[in-house]
Amino acid sequence: MSTFGKMFRVTTYGESHCKSVGCIVDGVPPGMSLSADDIQPQLTRRRPGQSKLSTPRNEKDRVDIQSGTEHGKTLGTPIAMMVHNEDHRPHDYSEMDAYPRPSHADYTYSEKYGIKASSGGGRASARETIGRVAAGAIAEKFLKQAAGVEIVAFVSEIGNVRMNRDPFDKEFQHTLNTITRAKVDAMGFIRCPDAALAADMVKEIEHYRGQQDSIGGVVTCVVRNVPTGLGEPCFDKLEALLAHAMLSIPASKGFEVGSGFAGTCVPGSKHNDLFYYDDDAQRLRTRTNNSGGIQGGISNGENIYFSVPFKSVATISQEQHTATYDGKDGVLAAKGRHDPAVTPRALPIVEAMTALVLADALLIQKSRDYARTVTK
Amino acid sequence: MSTFGKMFRVTTYGESHCKSVGCIVDGVPPGMSLSADDIQPQLTRRRPGQSKLSTPRNEKDRVDIQSGTEHGKTLGTPIAMMVHNEDHRPHDYSEMDAYPRPSHADYTYSEKYGIKASSGGGRASARETIGRVAAGAIAEKFLKQAAGVEIVAFVSEIGNVRMNRDPFDKEFQHTLNTITRAKVDAMGFIRCPDAALAADMVKEIEHYRGQQDSIGGVVTCVVRNVPTGLGEPCFDKLEALLAHAMLSIPASKGFEVGSGFAGTCVPGSKHNDLFYYDDDAQRLRTRTNNSGGIQGGISNGENIYFSVPFKSVATISQEQHTATYDGKDGVLAAKGRHDPAVTPRALPIVEAMTALVLADALLIQKSRDYARTVTK
Amino acid sequence: MSTFGKMFRVTTYGESHCKSVGCIVDGVPPGMSLSADDIQPQLTRRRPGQSKLSTPRNEKDRVDIQSGTEHGKTLGTPIAMMVHNEDHRPHDYSEMDAYPRPSHADYTYSEKYGIKASSGGGRASARETIGRVAAGAIAEKFLKQAAGVEIVAFVSEIGNVRMNRDPFDKEFQHTLNTITRAKVDAMGFIRCPDAALAADMVKEIEHYRGQQDSIGGVVTCVVRNVPTGLGEPCFDKLEALLAHAMLSIPASKGFEVGSGFAGTCVPGSKHNDLFYYDDDAQRLRTRTNNSGGIQGGISNGENIYFSVPFKSVATISQEQHTATYDGKDGVLAAKGRHDPAVTPRALPIVEAMTALVLADALLIQKSRDYARTVTK
Amino acid sequence: MSTFGKMFRVTTYGESHCKSVGCIVDGVPPGMSLSADDIQPQLTRRRPGQSKLSTPRNEKDRVDIQSGTEHGKTLGTPIAMMVHNEDHRPHDYSEMDAYPRPSHADYTYSEKYGIKASSGGGRASARETIGRVAAGAIAEKFLKQAAGVEIVAFVSEIGNVRMNRDPFDKEFQHTLNTITRAKVDAMGFIRCPDAALAADMVKEIEHYRGQQDSIGGVVTCVVRNVPTGLGEPCFDKLEALLAHAMLSIPASKGFEVGSGFAGTCVPGSKHNDLFYYDDDAQRLRTRTNNSGGIQGGISNGENIYFSVPFKSVATISQEQHTATYDGKDGVLAAKGRHDPAVTPRALPIVEAMTALVLADALLIQKSRDYARTVTK
Repeated sequence: MSTFGKMFRVTTYGESHCKSVGCIVDGVPPGMSLSADDIQPQLTRRRPGQSKLSTPRNEKDRVDIQSGTEHGKTLGTPIAMMVHNEDHRPHDYSEMDAYPRPSHADYTYSEKYGIKASSGGGRASARETIGRVAAGAIAEKFLKQAAGVEIVAFVSEIGNVRMNRDPFDKEFQHTLNTITRAKVDAMGFIRCPDAALAADMVKEIEHYRGQQDSIGGVVTCVVRNVPTGLGEPCFDKLEALLAHAMLSIPASKGFEVGSGFAGTCVPGSKHNDLFYYDDDAQRLRTRTNNSGGIQGGISNGENIYFSVPFKSVATISQEQHTATYDGKDGVLAAKGRHDPAVTPRALPIVEAMTALVLADALLIQKSRDYARTVTK
Repeated sequence: MSTFGKMFRVTTYGESHCKSVGCIVDGVPPGMSLSADDIQPQLTRRRPGQSKLSTPRNEKDRVDIQSGTEHGKTLGTPIAMMVHNEDHRPHDYSEMDAYPRPSHADYTYSEKYGIKASSGGGRASARETIGRVAAGAIAEKFLKQAAGVEIVAFVSEIGNVRMNRDPFDKEFQHTLNTITRAKVDAMGFIRCPDAALAADMVKEIEHYRGQQDSIGGVVTCVVRNVPTGLGEPCFDKLEALLAHAMLSIPASKGFEVGSGFAGTCVPGSKHNDLFYYDDDAQRLRTRTNNSGGIQGGISNGENIYFSVPFKSVATISQEQHTATYDGKDGVLAAKGRHDPAVTPRALPIVEAMTALVLADALLIQKSRDYARTVTK
Repeated sequence: MSTFGKMFRVTTYGESHCKSVGCIVDGVPPGMSLSADDIQPQLTRRRPGQSKLSTPRNEKDRVDIQSGTEHGKTLGTPIAMMVHNEDHRPHDYSEMDAYPRPSHADYTYSEKYGIKASSGGGRASARETIGRVAAGAIAEKFLKQAAGVEIVAFVSEIGNVRMNRDPFDKEFQHTLNTITRAKVDAMGFIRCPDAALAADMVKEIEHYRGQQDSIGGVVTCVVRNVPTGLGEPCFDKLEALLAHAMLSIPASKGFEVGSGFAGTCVPGSKHNDLFYYDDDAQRLRTRTNNSGGIQGGISNGENIYFSVPFKSVATISQEQHTATYDGKDGVLAAKGRHDPAVTPRALPIVEAMTALVLADALLIQKSRDYARTVTK
Repeated sequence: MSTFGKMFRVTTYGESHCKSVGCIVDGVPPGMSLSADDIQPQLTRRRPGQSKLSTPRNEKDRVDIQSGTEHGKTLGTPIAMMVHNEDHRPHDYSEMDAYPRPSHADYTYSEKYGIKASSGGGRASARETIGRVAAGAIAEKFLKQAAGVEIVAFVSEIGNVRMNRDPFDKEFQHTLNTITRAKVDAMGFIRCPDAALAADMVKEIEHYRGQQDSIGGVVTCVVRNVPTGLGEPCFDKLEALLAHAMLSIPASKGFEVGSGFAGTCVPGSKHNDLFYYDDDAQRLRTRTNNSGGIQGGISNGENIYFSVPFKSVATISQEQHTATYDGKDGVLAAKGRHDPAVTPRALPIVEAMTALVLADALLIQKSRDYARTVTK
C-alpha cells in the first residue's frame, strides 16, 4: 500500500492527473528546524526538464508544507506536504487510450483495479515519487543532525558504459569515501562523478535518442557515518529494508549490496572482511568492506553501499506492434519527445528511500539501545 | 523483527543453541488438509548432511505441529510448529569465543544487543530459517490449491560457472517453463538442472574445498501460474516484497527480477514486452518477459522469475588474521569440516519466502477483487 | 501514530493552527462513485457553530478531494482530502500561554514532544477529527454498497439525564432497530431521538452553561446489517478494534458493547443469547442480544451496539486555581464563549470510526471467505 | 490476528485440544535475567482449580522457555514459550456437539471459518490467554527494571456487590495508591482487597452456584510509576491501546479509564484535574486524577487506572432452550461442574495485557525521547 516505515513513516498520495501529489510524514522528531527550503532542492533534482537530455516538460514542483511545523520548527506531529499538478496535459495521451503501453503498468492496473485512469498506470507514474522525495528530505535532515549521516547516490552505469564497482578497486572505494552531491551535480544531468565516463554516458544516451529509443542504467548509493546496530533481524534486516525500498521505486529491477552479484565468485578467504581495532573510531572496523556495511542484517559502521538497476524507459517514439486492451493487434507510437534515460533522475528518489529506511532504523535502534541499559 | 506478512503471516523463533526453533503461522485458510508430511520434504531439502559436498552434521529436523489442525484439517487458527535442536555442540565453538568471526554477524549482534550468545550470531544462524521453510510449505500448499501456483528454485551459478540467464535465451526460457523440483533434485545436491553445468559446479566446489576455502553462487527461482493483480502499489509492489523476502535470507547479497542488472543495457525498443491476445488464457499476454511477470508492482500473469546471489560461506578452515572483540590482533581458524558452498541448500528457503510473499499477496488481492464487484 | 486500519487505512494530519487538516485514505475500492457531496454532510454535522448550544466559531470545513478519483469514480488509489484552516485566531489563546490547561493535553504534549505548539495540545485538538470524519464517510459509502450496513449514533446521556440502555428494554431495542440519522437530527443539535429526554438534556446543558461550566455525556451507536464473520481473533477481535477506535477519539473515557458494565450483574441463565433459526435470514439468530452482535470477537449478524462516554468539556470560563508550566500557582480562566457540551458533535466521529473499523474488517473477512472456498 | 504490539510484540497460538499453547515474544530487551520462575507465578494465578469457587479441573500449566535466553539472560532474540495441554478431555463436550453454545464463540467461529473445532470456539477458549500471561510477565519484569512500574489488578465488583470506584472517594484512591498483589491474593481466590466486600462477593458467587447459574464482575487495574510521555497520538493514544488490549480478553464487555462512564455527569469545574508543582517529583502533578493518568492519549505520570467488565460465564449447567447448528430447536445443558465466576481469574490476564501495552509504549517513547535531544 502507500505507507512505508514504522517509527518514521511516510504515506503518499497522488497520480499524474489529479489536483496534487504529496505525503504525510509521521514520527518526525520535534524541535527540528524545517522549511520548504530543506525539501525543495531534492524535489528540484528529481523533476524533469533539467537538461536537453531529459524531457522538456517543465514541472514546477513547489512543495507546500501544510502541517506539523510552527515558527519553522517541527512539532512532532505529522507533516503533510503537497505539490500541485500544474501540467496535466491529459490530451497528450488520448490516442494511445486503446492500448496498454508495453512494459508500463497500464495492463496490470487494469487487471487489478478494473478501471482505467486516464493516465494509464495511475500510481505507477513517476509523479508518485514526489511524496517520497519530500519525505526523504526530512528523514535526511534528521539523520544528519542525529549522526552526521551522509547519503550520496550517483550514476554508475548507462547502457554499456559502466564504472568499475569491484569492492577491491581502490578508485571505487575512493569514490565511495569522498563523493558528494555537489560533485555529482557538477557533472551535469548525467550525474556520474567520473568525467570520462560521464562523457561516454552522454554519448550513449544521445545514441539511443537519435534512434527514438531509450536505455537503462545503474544507480549506486553510499551512506557514510552510519551508527552500528541498525536493522532488526530476522525479517527486517537492514539490507532487506533497503531492497524493499529500492524495488518499490518505479522502473527499478534489482538491488545488490556490498560485493553483490559479482561477489559470489570471490572465495571466502578473500571475501571475508577481517577485523582490526581502529583507534579513532574506538571500535572494531573491517579492512575490506565486501559486506557493504551490513552483517547479519545489522549495520557495522562501515560505509553502506548498494546498486540499483533501472530498466530502459518504456515510453519510446518508435512504433511498437502490440495489442489493444480488447485484444486487437495494432501499432502504438508515443507522441512527443521522451526522456531516453531517466536513471539520473532516480538519484534523489534512491537517496530519499535510503533516508527513510535509515531514519526508521535509527529510531528503532535507539529504543533498543535504551532498553539494554536498564535491564539486569 | 521476526514477523513477516500481513494476512498470511509467519513469526519465527530460535537460534542454534536453544531447545527448539520454529514458528507460528497466522492466517492459514481453514479446511485445508495438513500434516507434517506436507512440511517435512522442504525441511529435509534444507538440512545439512545430504551429500559429501555439504557439512557432515546430521540434523534430524523433524517438524512437530503444535496447534491449528484437527483431524488433519486446518482450523483457521495459528499453526505453531517446532523442530528440536538435537545437536547443540556448543563446545565446537569454544576456541573462537574471543573473536567475532569475519563476515559473520558476531560483531554486529554484539554491537546491537550488547550480549554475546554462545552461538555468536544468534538469529543470524542458518537454523533460524527452519521456521521460514516450515511456514513456506503451508503457504505453498495453499497457493497450489488456490491457483495451481508452482514455485521452483534452482542453482544457476556457482563461482565462475554460470547458466545463461538472458531473458532472450530460448534455453533459459525453456528451463523457466518446465523446471520441476524433481528435475532439480535429480542433479544431486548441486541442484542445477543442466547436467554439464552441474558437473562443472561440483568441480568448482571441490576446488575450493581442497583449499579449505568456500565459494558463493546464485539461486534463480521461477513462479508459474501466478494470477494477475497481485501486489499493492506503491510501497508493497510485488517485486519489493520479494526483494525484501530474499534479502532477509542469511548470506544473500542481492536480488534481480526479470532482465535485472543485465537488462539495463538493452534498449527500450527491444526490452519492452509487447502484448498479444492469448486465446487459451483469454487475456492479453506478452511476447517477451523482460518484466519478469511484474509490471508496475503488479503481477501480469507471466512467469515471475528472479535471481538471488549468496556470498561465499564465511566459515572457513584457513587461518584468518583478524582481531578479538577487545581489539587484539590474532589468528582465527575454524575447526572441523565446513560446507564450502551453501547455495544449493538455500533453494527451499528461497521457495519458502516466495510462497509466503505470494500467499499474502493473493489473500490481499482477493479482498480487492471482491470490493470492486460491489461498488458502483 | 496517525494511521489506522490495515486493508482500508486512513492517515490523518493537521492541528488547529496550520494551513489545513486532512487525510489520506488508502485501500478504497475502485469503481465507486465519489464526490465531495458524499463527504460534506458528516463534516458539516461535526463542525461547531450549529446551534446556540454550541460554540459560535463558524468554521466552514469544505472538503477538497486531491487525488484518487477520476470522472467521479474512485481509482483504487489513495484518496487525499483536505480542509483549510480558515479561522486560526491564535491570539485568542495568548493569555493562557503560561498555563497548561487542566485536563487538556497541553502538559502531556509538552512532556512528550518538548515543544509547545501555540494551540497547546496540537493533535489533541478536535480539529484533528476532520480527517477521520472525511475518511469515515468513504468507508460508510462502501459498507452501504457492499452489504447495506447502516451506522447511526445518538446521544443517550447528558449529565444526569439518561436513556434506559438495558438490552432487555423493549423501547431501547426498538430504538436500535429503527433509529436513523434523520430522526437523530430532527431533535436539533442535542441529537437524542427521545423528545422528552432531549428537552431535559437541553435544560441540563443550559444549566451548566449558566454556571460557566460544562457537562459530559454518552454516545450510543448501532450498526445494522453487519455480515457474520467480521473480526480476527485473538487480538483483533471486532470489539477490541471498536474499543481502540472509540478511545482514540478526543475526550472519550470508555467503551461498552452489548450489555456492557451493567450486564455483569445479570446471571448467565438470563444473559446468554439463545439461538433460533430465522427463516428470513436463513441462518441462526439469537433471541436476545446481550452480546451486542459480537461473540468471540466475531460478528454474529445481530445489531452491533455500543456506548462511549465523553467527559465534560475541559475548557470552561470559570477561574481555575492551577499552575503554570514552570510550576507557579496561578489562576486561569478561558476567555470567550465555550461549548458546554460537545457530546452531540461527537456523533459523526463515532460513526466515522465505526465505519473505518468495519470497512477494514469486511475487506479482511472477504479474503478469508475466499480462502476457505479453495482449500481441501 | 494473533500478534499484538510493535516494538515489544507477542504472537500467540493454541486452542484447548491441541498439543500446546504458547507464544513468541519479540523485542525483549537483551541482558535481562529471565527464567521460568519469572513467568510461572502469573500462569499459576491464571489457571483454574485454585479454590472451591473455581472449576476443579487441575491444569498444571508449566511454562517451558524454548529460545531467546542463555545462561539465564535474555539475548534480545525472540522468546518462545509453551505450555502443554495435558487434560484435553474432548469427550466432555461430545453431547453438545450439535449445538453452538449460547453466548460462546461456537456459532461465529463456524460462520467465519466454516469448520467446527471439537473445542467449539477454538481460539475463543480461555486457554488462549496462557500465551498472553506468559508474555506479559516478561513485559512486566522489563517495566519494573526500567521504571519501577507496578501493575496491580483486583476485583471491584461481582454481581451486585461493588466497590465505590468514584475517583473522589478517598478510600478508593488509597486502594489505588497502596494495593499490591500480595494484598489481593491474601483475600483468597475472590481477589477483592476489601475484606467485607470480598465476603459478600463469595456469597454472591455461592448464590449463583447454588442455582447452577453464573455471574459476572468487574476488574479494576492500577498502574503506578508510569513515566510521562507514553502513548502516540492520534490513533495510538495510550487509552486506545489499553482499551484494545482489554476488549481482546475473552468475556470482557467494556473499558473505562479514570472517571469513566460515571464521570460524564461531573461538571468540568469539578472534573478538571488542576495542576500544582510537586517538589519530590520535580514536575507538575494534578491534585485530582479524573483523567486516570492519561491526557490527550499520553501518560501524565499519575496513576493509570481503569476498569473492565466481564460478563457472566456462558457455560452453565441449567437447561437452555436453544437451537442446533442446523436450525433445530432443542435443549442444551452443560455437563459437569462449571466455574460460576471467572472474573477473579481474569486478573493476571488484565495485568499481562497492561504490561504488554506499556512495555511497547515505553520502548517507543524512549526512541522519541532520544530524537528530540538531537534535533535543532
